[in-house]
Amino acid sequence: MKKLINTPETLVADALTGFAAAHPGLAVDVEARVVTRSARPAAGKVALVSGGGSGHEPLHAGFVGPGMLDAACPGEVFTSPVPDQVLAAARAVDAGAGVVFLVKNYSGDVMNFRLAAELAAEEGVEVRQVLIDDDVAVEDSTWTAGRRGTGATLVVEKTAGALAERGASLEEVAALAAEVNAASRSFALALTAATVPAVGRPGFDLPEDEIEMGVGIHGEPGRRRAPMRPVRELAAEVVETVLADHDLSPGDPVIALVNGLGGTPLLELYVVFGEVHARLAEHGVTIVRSLVGNYVTSLDMAGFSLTLTRADARLLDLWDAPVDTPALRWS
Amino acid sequence: MKKLINTPETLVADALTGFAAAHPGLAVDVEARVVTRSARPAAGKVALVSGGGSGHEPLHAGFVGPGMLDAACPGEVFTSPVPDQVLAAARAVDAGAGVVFLVKNYSGDVMNFRLAAELAAEEGVEVRQVLIDDDVAVEDSTWTAGRRGTGATLVVEKTAGALAERGASLEEVAALAAEVNAASRSFALALTAATVPAVGRPGFDLPEDEIEMGVGIHGEPGRRRAPMRPVRELAAEVVETVLADHDLSPGDPVIALVNGLGGTPLLELYVVFGEVHARLAEHGVTIVRSLVGNYVTSLDMAGFSLTLTRADARLLDLWDAPVDTPALRWS
Repeated sequence: MKKLINTPETLVADALTGFAAAHPGLAVDVEARVVTRSARPAAGKVALVSGGGSGHEPLHAGFVGPGMLDAACPGEVFTSPVPDQVLAAARAVDAGAGVVFLVKNYSGDVMNFRLAAELAAEEGVEVRQVLIDDDVAVEDSTWTAGRRGTGATLVVEKTAGALAERGASLEEVAALAAEVNAASRSFALALTAATVPAVGRPGFDLPEDEIEMGVGIHGEPGRRRAPMRPVRELAAEVVETVLADHDLSPGDPVIALVNGLGGTPLLELYVVFGEVHARLAEHGVTIVRSLVGNYVTSLDMAGFSLTLTRADARLLDLWDAPVDTPALRWS
Repeated sequence: MKKLINTPETLVADALTGFAAAHPGLAVDVEARVVTRSARPAAGKVALVSGGGSGHEPLHAGFVGPGMLDAACPGEVFTSPVPDQVLAAARAVDAGAGVVFLVKNYSGDVMNFRLAAELAAEEGVEVRQVLIDDDVAVEDSTWTAGRRGTGATLVVEKTAGALAERGASLEEVAALAAEVNAASRSFALALTAATVPAVGRPGFDLPEDEIEMGVGIHGEPGRRRAPMRPVRELAAEVVETVLADHDLSPGDPVIALVNGLGGTPLLELYVVFGEVHARLAEHGVTIVRSLVGNYVTSLDMAGFSLTLTRADARLLDLWDAPVDTPALRWS
């Protein structure tokens, strides 16, 4: 294992120290492991908090800023943030209108965010929790009861963040987040496994001519091993798998995220996007907005995920709204 | 070799097809391999054209758009664009005020851009060429007479692009580009070699406990093999190497680019940035603007480069100017 780290034990703190230096417009508490915007939200604005294990960057800290999250809580690598950490984030960003926790569906995350929500409620902070479970690969997995939460997290955080910015109520923001999750489906494949620094070797063995179909963002097993093939065939299978679980009709507009898992270069992701675009067109599904890049990653894993979100005019308007974060920025 | 491609022969065309689908606001001629903005520049605006081998994405096509390049010419992987391609780009974007070619210093690029400039001149298009040669690792290399052009390309393209947008003359834009190149120094190290798809195996062998110090963006040899060490030591050596070649004084503000080479995840790049930031502070050098991410890459190579550009108030103003491209976007 060769990695640009000091020690596995200090990795998350070292990365947060660098993140703080690179983004002086955000407030980074390296000790408490909470990233927030520089100032508490204006009174009456609903606050959005997310978090999860580190190793998925830029998710979530890279999505903190105007138009998106108010706070992120990074745990250790592939390890849930602890309840006290999430509670500290909720305290820091509550502006009297309540806080929405956006929680990817992993057992540890679900438990710790729920405990934090209970503790926050005892302090008078009103919390709504929205579970993200867009990955169609498996019904239950190593670390999950129910489906895993993956790429849709970005779409939920972007659109719910925009709605909160416009002054919507706690119920409205939580409802929108749940609605966007329900309108999203994802599927991923891996060419290589990620290497967790504290473990020091790849999470699974994958021969030179095989891939893992339906892999999770911590390297959880997917549906099956499959032979490596040209990307045209791989992308076609991924598109068919996502569409088979989706309730899209011909003519439906979608937001498409072709997401690298950390070790796949952009050149290849554009090839994937071209294939996905062509296959969807054959089904009469139109990509009206897209992102191509490494956004919801799994350390150094090579591979990609596809997320498709059915997008009505309201959702597109929220997607297009200004955002100013380290990883997503437009106006 | 496992890669998300169809065939090595169709890789660049397939990626450009995907790029076109992902960025409908740009004009992509897949056949001619020229990417331009959707419309010719307004009459009297100086046009900026860059290009080089593919495999360095998002460089250069990802930097086409308002505030940055007018056109990019991607060659085959690690292969210079041909003169006709560059000529076609110059023709497409000349608005009567001339065209600046921003050329990374590699022998093939230098020759082909020069030929294109001569052909353009014969057609009445005035061209200025600016060579980018910021890499302090070696004085001459496999593919270079003189120093190689690497990370500074992004800084030159951003600032010269902003100046052109403000209506500066051909001489002014070319002079600024040369000035920014002269104010920039870079150095890179690799943990792994890139695999060129048409070759099918890594460009060099690097044992599990060694790195290449001073590597080039095509995997050209650097200064020496060195033992793998904690990133604190690696970053310190890179900072010392860059500063030793730079004419920075304590108190000087710099733009810092901590750039991944394609296979290094963002989590590690933030650790690198934290170390670079701390070492520079010890030297009294202040990072006033920064980018952390994969911008000037070498396919799937793991490693990073550091670029430092001395930045006066004028340069910072140009850096901060609005930009709207696939890879850099702010307002």
